[in-house]
Amino acid sequence: MKIATFWWAGRRHVGRVSADERDVTPLALGDRAHAVGALALVEMMAEGAPIPKPSGAALPLSAVKLDAPIPVPRRNIFCVGLNYRAHATEFANSGAGGPRPPQQQVVPEFPVIFSKVPESVIPPEAEIRIPNGLSSSIDYEAELAVVIGKTGTNIPSSRAMDHVWGYTIVNDVTARDLQRRHQQWLLGKSLDTFAPMGPWLACTNELDGAHTRVRCWVNDELRQDAPTEDLIFDIPTLISTISAGITLYPGDIIATGTPAGVGIGFDPPKFLRRGDRVRIHIEGIGTLSNPVQ
Amino acid sequence: MKIATFWWAGRRHVGRVSADERDVTPLALGDRAHAVGALALVEMMAEGAPIPKPSGAALPLSAVKLDAPIPVPRRNIFCVGLNYRAHATEFANSGAGGPRPPQQQVVPEFPVIFSKVPESVIPPEAEIRIPNGLSSSIDYEAELAVVIGKTGTNIPSSRAMDHVWGYTIVNDVTARDLQRRHQQWLLGKSLDTFAPMGPWLACTNELDGAHTRVRCWVNDELRQDAPTEDLIFDIPTLISTISAGITLYPGDIIATGTPAGVGIGFDPPKFLRRGDRVRIHIEGIGTLSNPVQ
Repeated sequence: MKIATFWWAGRRHVGRVSADERDVTPLALGDRAHAVGALALVEMMAEGAPIPKPSGAALPLSAVKLDAPIPVPRRNIFCVGLNYRAHATEFANSGAGGPRPPQQQVVPEFPVIFSKVPESVIPPEAEIRIPNGLSSSIDYEAELAVVIGKTGTNIPSSRAMDHVWGYTIVNDVTARDLQRRHQQWLLGKSLDTFAPMGPWLACTNELDGAHTRVRCWVNDELRQDAPTEDLIFDIPTLISTISAGITLYPGDIIATGTPAGVGIGFDPPKFLRRGDRVRIHIEGIGTLSNPVQ
Repeated sequence: MKIATFWWAGRRHVGRVSADERDVTPLALGDRAHAVGALALVEMMAEGAPIPKPSGAALPLSAVKLDAPIPVPRRNIFCVGLNYRAHATEFANSGAGGPRPPQQQVVPEFPVIFSKVPESVIPPEAEIRIPNGLSSSIDYEAELAVVIGKTGTNIPSSRAMDHVWGYTIVNDVTARDLQRRHQQWLLGKSLDTFAPMGPWLACTNELDGAHTRVRCWVNDELRQDAPTEDLIFDIPTLISTISAGITLYPGDIIATGTPAGVGIGFDPPKFLRRGDRVRIHIEGIGTLSNPVQ
């Protein structure tokens, strides 16, 4: 099952995407869907409700405008840094993390978790905006994102997948200069428009997050290409680590980290420029594409 | 004007605290106040509404139960690290930040900004819970917190104070071992119960955040005592820095950093233990007190 949030007839709706990805059938979710998109469905299902009935006929996807599946997450997005070995190495070599103490390992011993503000989320096809004068090193990061479907604290790895509602794609756009300058990454990761999300949510029957493939193109150049088997800390470990002391709620989003091939990894770096387009494909989910302006 | 969020007759209310801090008069704010506490007032005033009329007679503060003024912030709390020189030094000397590269200065050149999840907020008198088995180094951090009252992006320092609705106190409780282990501070700062907030909001007519005094006692021992003149990055600089690229909204909270005297600053460290009580006083606001369990 794939669930899209979309605009149609002047309102936000939530619907089920057909298997051929040509149509979307709106679901009877009430006013909360108009307000918060697919978060309404995730929350209802967490309460034990079944998938709601259609509220109307199927619409061609070409006739609606996709919104981010969860347009404004209920709190900051949890993000994982340096979670692919090759990316951790390219990041260390780039110097983007600032000066490193000689004792510190390139590959982290424990998950590196930071956040992005909810309002940085933008829909498919919306513009990633390069902020004038603030940063000259805007980078892309293609990531598989997990959507939590069930409240939990101290979730053991062995039961972590029971708490996963599904997946989506997040582009963890980053201002490398701000990331370095402020030591903690919140600011460099949270600028307005820095979290393209979509194209929709894919349930766990559509893909196995542990065995899928993340690819990212800038214009027509393939920059990132990795299997999620390469994650240093796998999805159950991430859920178990975060929930050890922090209660996770339905609708929480965990972006699992990006593979090698980000702009800062090249010499000279290949930062985003106005007119570029970033396209991310994850097998079993689909394609998230955004222009840069 | 001091505005408290409190429980009375089974519901959450928002009210004005009397000058002698003996009574609170509930305000006619409608259902949103029952749902989100004083955030409802801050949002209404951002829309240009005046202070609402009383909805009933004054109640003795002793007859109500204080809630956190903003019980669940609209997104993660923005927090500032290492923003008092003496604290930045004690933190560096403690090793709690992990290994430091020799080139890195003890006092940051740019504000260090991270976040705490909204659900870590607890009211005055609620228990700070030491999580079993997860951390053995729980520390207190007394902080003046700014509440934003007006939406803004790219706010210049010269106009930053126009965006301040008022102030409250936040105890930025921290698990030092997790803070170090995960490199980024989100997890070590966000455990359930790790953000005591209160006792209420104080408007800008009650105090000047640039010239007040922050004190913190553990049991009866004065541990922290500093004037906010000692902030490395003052409130206008923080608002200007965060809003350069990230839109700030009414109800956003910025915890401005903690003075020297945290537990990790002592040798041996003085971490919190079950049965302790942390009491924070900020002149012009009041006292926030929480037991540790």
